[in-house]
Amino acid sequence: MTQILIIYASDFGNTEKMAQATADGVRSIKGAQPLVKKAEETTKEDMKGSDGILFGSAVHMGSMAWQMKKFIDRICSGLWLEDSMNGKVAGVFVSGGGFGGSGAGAELAMLSMLNNIAELGMLIVPLPKNTSLYTKGGLHWGPYGRSADESMEHIGVTDDALTVCRTHGANVTRIAMIMKAHPVFVD
Amino acid sequence: MTQILIIYASDFGNTEKMAQATADGVRSIKGAQPLVKKAEETTKEDMKGSDGILFGSAVHMGSMAWQMKKFIDRICSGLWLEDSMNGKVAGVFVSGGGFGGSGAGAELAMLSMLNNIAELGMLIVPLPKNTSLYTKGGLHWGPYGRSADESMEHIGVTDDALTVCRTHGANVTRIAMIMKAHPVFVD
Amino acid sequence: MTQILIIYASDFGNTEKMAQATADGVRSIKGAQPLVKKAEETTKEDMKGSDGILFGSAVHMGSMAWQMKKFIDRICSGLWLEDSMNGKVAGVFVSGGGFGGSGAGAELAMLSMLNNIAELGMLIVPLPKNTSLYTKGGLHWGPYGRSADESMEHIGVTDDALTVCRTHGANVTRIAMIMKAHPVFVD
Amino acid sequence: MTQILIIYASDFGNTEKMAQATADGVRSIKGAQPLVKKAEETTKEDMKGSDGILFGSAVHMGSMAWQMKKFIDRICSGLWLEDSMNGKVAGVFVSGGGFGGSGAGAELAMLSMLNNIAELGMLIVPLPKNTSLYTKGGLHWGPYGRSADESMEHIGVTDDALTVCRTHGANVTRIAMIMKAHPVFVD
Repeated sequence: MTQILIIYASDFGNTEKMAQATADGVRSIKGAQPLVKKAEETTKEDMKGSDGILFGSAVHMGSMAWQMKKFIDRICSGLWLEDSMNGKVAGVFVSGGGFGGSGAGAELAMLSMLNNIAELGMLIVPLPKNTSLYTKGGLHWGPYGRSADESMEHIGVTDDALTVCRTHGANVTRIAMIMKAHPVFVD
Repeated sequence: MTQILIIYASDFGNTEKMAQATADGVRSIKGAQPLVKKAEETTKEDMKGSDGILFGSAVHMGSMAWQMKKFIDRICSGLWLEDSMNGKVAGVFVSGGGFGGSGAGAELAMLSMLNNIAELGMLIVPLPKNTSLYTKGGLHWGPYGRSADESMEHIGVTDDALTVCRTHGANVTRIAMIMKAHPVFVD
Repeated sequence: MTQILIIYASDFGNTEKMAQATADGVRSIKGAQPLVKKAEETTKEDMKGSDGILFGSAVHMGSMAWQMKKFIDRICSGLWLEDSMNGKVAGVFVSGGGFGGSGAGAELAMLSMLNNIAELGMLIVPLPKNTSLYTKGGLHWGPYGRSADESMEHIGVTDDALTVCRTHGANVTRIAMIMKAHPVFVD
Repeated sequence: MTQILIIYASDFGNTEKMAQATADGVRSIKGAQPLVKKAEETTKEDMKGSDGILFGSAVHMGSMAWQMKKFIDRICSGLWLEDSMNGKVAGVFVSGGGFGGSGAGAELAMLSMLNNIAELGMLIVPLPKNTSLYTKGGLHWGPYGRSADESMEHIGVTDDALTVCRTHGANVTRIAMIMKAHPVFVD
């Protein structure tokens, strides 16, 4: 069985909905199962026992939520020291108000998580442009769930964005299965 | 007289329109005049003779247009070696199709220009959230003119985005005037 | 009196040393005083009562320390909503092991703090290349204190890097004084 | 036969040396052959006919060389429109003077190329920390060849950095072979 860990930090439930949709994408692939965890509750063993990881966060001031950062500082840095995640597969997703009309820091928020992923030696799965509904909920680094309209009213992430999350979850899973069967970064 | 140089690289005229609107913002400040130039035509002397600089580019694959990059490699790197731009004032703006609903690389495109600006030792002027019409044409790093709709049809930058450009041009100008009168990075 | 707030998150004392050196730079300017605070202890009032802010953090997995991120999520996001920091002046500094020979994520760590600064509408002060000892402790975004050697042995930040911090603190202070006397982003 | 395309932009020969070392890494894998091309000479067919791509550039003012950007704007943007690179495998490497002691923009230079790679829907191969000689020539995003010492004297990239390039070339090749045999982003 291939296990895909989905770690998220959510304030108002938007990122959590995206995490659940991503988990549905994992379940859609035969032989794979998701493990969905809040950042505060994720352990080193959850990471080591998984073949692929998806990191999802709300965008706060152009970076990931502090709970995700705490998880990275406390748990991931130890895994980095041990070189124990090399060659696994990863992806990211974020939600945010999108104030300003162009993601409001979504891109650097994704990159702040991707920097951790690259340091862990994991392969990064982007979101291809030909993904169905890409224009409604995707950035090339991963799904983006806009949760507010232009007047900053909270509207919640759309079903379209959740559909994109399902696809991303399935993509990461398929690639994690392949890489699990073909380890490349063997010491 | 305070001179503000507006350098741009534009394919379909969107960034050029933004450059012109930014120039209107410069003109709105008494004692200041804009110098609007295409990246290919901008000289070292244009840079050295100006008190503030605005760099505007189309977003291409998540970075600035190659014409702007050529200008930076050919002209700015020489100015960097000479330390001749330190303490001047700068800002950025970009236009793009915005495919994906969250700027499609607008943020890293701005940062690819801002990295050059920081290396030149120039002060960076962001776009404050309380800027009028911010939600229609602004990212915190500067104005963003979305030029296509969700189906990737070209619609051109909106008047709202151009209004934001005018404000940004005026902001950079006011700060350039102040810093010109109070040099701080004297050797 | 111009007040410059220096907020830091430090694990092993390296960033703290840099914060103290930066404070010395503030003190070197007549009419200015530093307020040095750990991220966990900094309040909204500290931010609003200061004319310039320096954010300093250890680099952890290519981003700022979680304590700094918690401060940004809890305190800065509220200030952003209120538009109460616009036009103030800011800078950054980081320390890190530098494993890999090229900063090991120092640049994105600085940008993760700078994204917050830009969202707050604050002017960004870079570190000019002609700063004395720049080659020993500087990146264009601000001072960098390398705290380990190539074999990852902890050596602590050098005196040279601390000298660069003093200069950066003085630069931010001078510009904060000027901008305080000439408010530009008035509503 | 698996073909790995190595595209580079080099001014003084440092990045070119790294490209050649990367090609040696490709050759070290049975069943694979490298195609080494300057950015100006690379065609759409070179891209479409390759299973993995390595993009190498000098760092100029914190971003890639303009010749690489021109290639991306002219060639890659067309491939993006056609969705013809999805699921292929990619990596990056850069060289630079490293002035400032922490990469001098190497990280954003790599990200300016990686943004293009993600938009093309390609999997990103990082450089694992346990790579031999990582501390002498590696950043988590890929090999970094420092070409100058602290006084900015040109010293050229070290043999250690070239060794890291060989490993990176081999890594990308192995993963490209696996992904070629297991297409995942089928429409």
